[in-house]
Amino acid sequence: MISVTVNTSKPYDVYIGADILSSIGKQARSLGNVSKVCVVSESNVYPLYGSSVEAFLESSGFDVVRFVFPAGEASKNGDTFLRLLDYLSQCGLTRTDLIVALGGGVVGDLAGFAAATFLRGIQLIQVPTTLLAAVDSSVGGKTAIDLPSGKNLAGAFYQPSMVICDIECLNSLPPSLFEDGCAETIKYGILYDRSLFSHLEENGLVFDREAVIGRCVELKRDVVCEDEFDTASRMRLNLGHTIGHGVAACSHFTMSHGRSVAVGIAVISRAAMRKGLLSAEECHRIESILNAFGLPTETTFTPQELIPFILSDKKRSGNTVKLIIPRKIGQCDILPIPVQDLEEWIQVGIAK
Amino acid sequence: MISVTVNTSKPYDVYIGADILSSIGKQARSLGNVSKVCVVSESNVYPLYGSSVEAFLESSGFDVVRFVFPAGEASKNGDTFLRLLDYLSQCGLTRTDLIVALGGGVVGDLAGFAAATFLRGIQLIQVPTTLLAAVDSSVGGKTAIDLPSGKNLAGAFYQPSMVICDIECLNSLPPSLFEDGCAETIKYGILYDRSLFSHLEENGLVFDREAVIGRCVELKRDVVCEDEFDTASRMRLNLGHTIGHGVAACSHFTMSHGRSVAVGIAVISRAAMRKGLLSAEECHRIESILNAFGLPTETTFTPQELIPFILSDKKRSGNTVKLIIPRKIGQCDILPIPVQDLEEWIQVGIAK
Repeated sequence: MISVTVNTSKPYDVYIGADILSSIGKQARSLGNVSKVCVVSESNVYPLYGSSVEAFLESSGFDVVRFVFPAGEASKNGDTFLRLLDYLSQCGLTRTDLIVALGGGVVGDLAGFAAATFLRGIQLIQVPTTLLAAVDSSVGGKTAIDLPSGKNLAGAFYQPSMVICDIECLNSLPPSLFEDGCAETIKYGILYDRSLFSHLEENGLVFDREAVIGRCVELKRDVVCEDEFDTASRMRLNLGHTIGHGVAACSHFTMSHGRSVAVGIAVISRAAMRKGLLSAEECHRIESILNAFGLPTETTFTPQELIPFILSDKKRSGNTVKLIIPRKIGQCDILPIPVQDLEEWIQVGIAK
Repeated sequence: MISVTVNTSKPYDVYIGADILSSIGKQARSLGNVSKVCVVSESNVYPLYGSSVEAFLESSGFDVVRFVFPAGEASKNGDTFLRLLDYLSQCGLTRTDLIVALGGGVVGDLAGFAAATFLRGIQLIQVPTTLLAAVDSSVGGKTAIDLPSGKNLAGAFYQPSMVICDIECLNSLPPSLFEDGCAETIKYGILYDRSLFSHLEENGLVFDREAVIGRCVELKRDVVCEDEFDTASRMRLNLGHTIGHGVAACSHFTMSHGRSVAVGIAVISRAAMRKGLLSAEECHRIESILNAFGLPTETTFTPQELIPFILSDKKRSGNTVKLIIPRKIGQCDILPIPVQDLEEWIQVGIAK
């Protein structure tokens, strides 16, 4: 088992390993005066792990209740959020009680936002069950819901009290969902770590899960500790996300987050190469690794179709968009560009 | 004009004075890269000050939009909150933009929670137009909405960027609303400041508004800076609120917050006196000043009726309730009591 301490305003530990879910009762006991626990999960994940998690918690003496919503991004909305808040209240959870978020990014975002706001904040354990959540959303304290006008438009910065990532849970993931998570692990390599990138290149889908997740969490920890509230260097984590969000939105979200980010990484890498900011060899390695992990690198959407969605994204600041540009594998720059230059950047990156 | 600096995690200034609302455009300019401003208000207050505030902002070059909801606590719910969030998004506000909360506690709580959560936090200027909001809710960063199961059950700690309290706005308050605010100013005297209490005793409803509001804000500032997240000494501000919330809830909220708190202060003061914790003379002064300000000091609700609402309050921690007990005017203690002792405490305080 690997443990990573995240020294944000509220410090916490991330545990990564095989068969560690059974420790959740003991771990929750270490959080102080917790009496009631609400397990928040969704309809795909809860049948797999819900009853075990509840049994582990109950055997440590907790009073356990549960809130299970239909799987899918469509549930990550204001209505589910308000229903969850009222359920917590009806169950009599107090300020010292605990939410366990059992699932992928949708569960973590929604349950995290509820934990951040119920009684102005109660404790939270993130139990990511997807690779994407393990390396990205469960660490760093970003929580959110979608609004009718866009994704992740309301939320809070709210650090969990603990993250328990049992890599055995990843075995139940459909291959396409596992590949989605790989897009984010590849992103960490491009951003910060050539040797992580090489390990993924050499091993493909059978990489060392504990080591790779542990390394990604360490890298994210470093970024989050430097810029907890996402005003500066943390923006680098948006590599591939600006264009990726446009691709996902244009597809009416039929294309997954991971695949959309893969396209976004490929487009911005090609644009960087064609503008002389990234070598052809490094760009080729980036495109190749994405393809090797079963991820797409092309899109048929036009810049004109993508741009309206990109501009409604919350990363825009006035009339400037900040692009994350790969300069070489392991190093990316933040490049502020005027909104009117965006079309040309995307056009250059999309072209065959 | 008085200005008070609040050195919380995000420091900000509170300005208190006559005819200072006209400075809001210039003040908002000092907050940095603000482009759009959303004025959030309600149907009683907006017709009085909305167009002036918007004109002041527009003359400083801001693009101004507005969200006005029906006056009253019933609007402080999840539905209004989600509608406001989506409106902010539709209007294209970005992370560097601003909400102006123009109104009393309902507006401040709701607009504050929206500012805390839209894009995970945008800037906020509180413009309190009631005495209650001026001395209490606009300072200190508590924001909230009500849930079907209770009041203020979801929210965030989120400090404003500035508070502008124009005491001329208080002239438009109906006398009963002004008296409501007086209950909170009297509370500060009982908690921390005998000379503030004496000034209110001597002057009644014609006290020096700028000086008294300024002093209350200073006192609240000291508490909030010591305990921003309400885990220890800030609890003292709940003097009269534990029983007061029960009274308000039993009345189906036909009794106002200020009047309910007045009853709560009187009940806990009598209980403290009868248990030998407060002198009869000091207790009499507390009851007398409340009556002199037109506030009630008695309730016909029984402990059995009050207790269920008190126990659903978020201030409960497991099986303990923390009562704030006046020991003398200017000094109160926090007394944790077992839930089962609550009935006897209330019974003693209610008895004639």
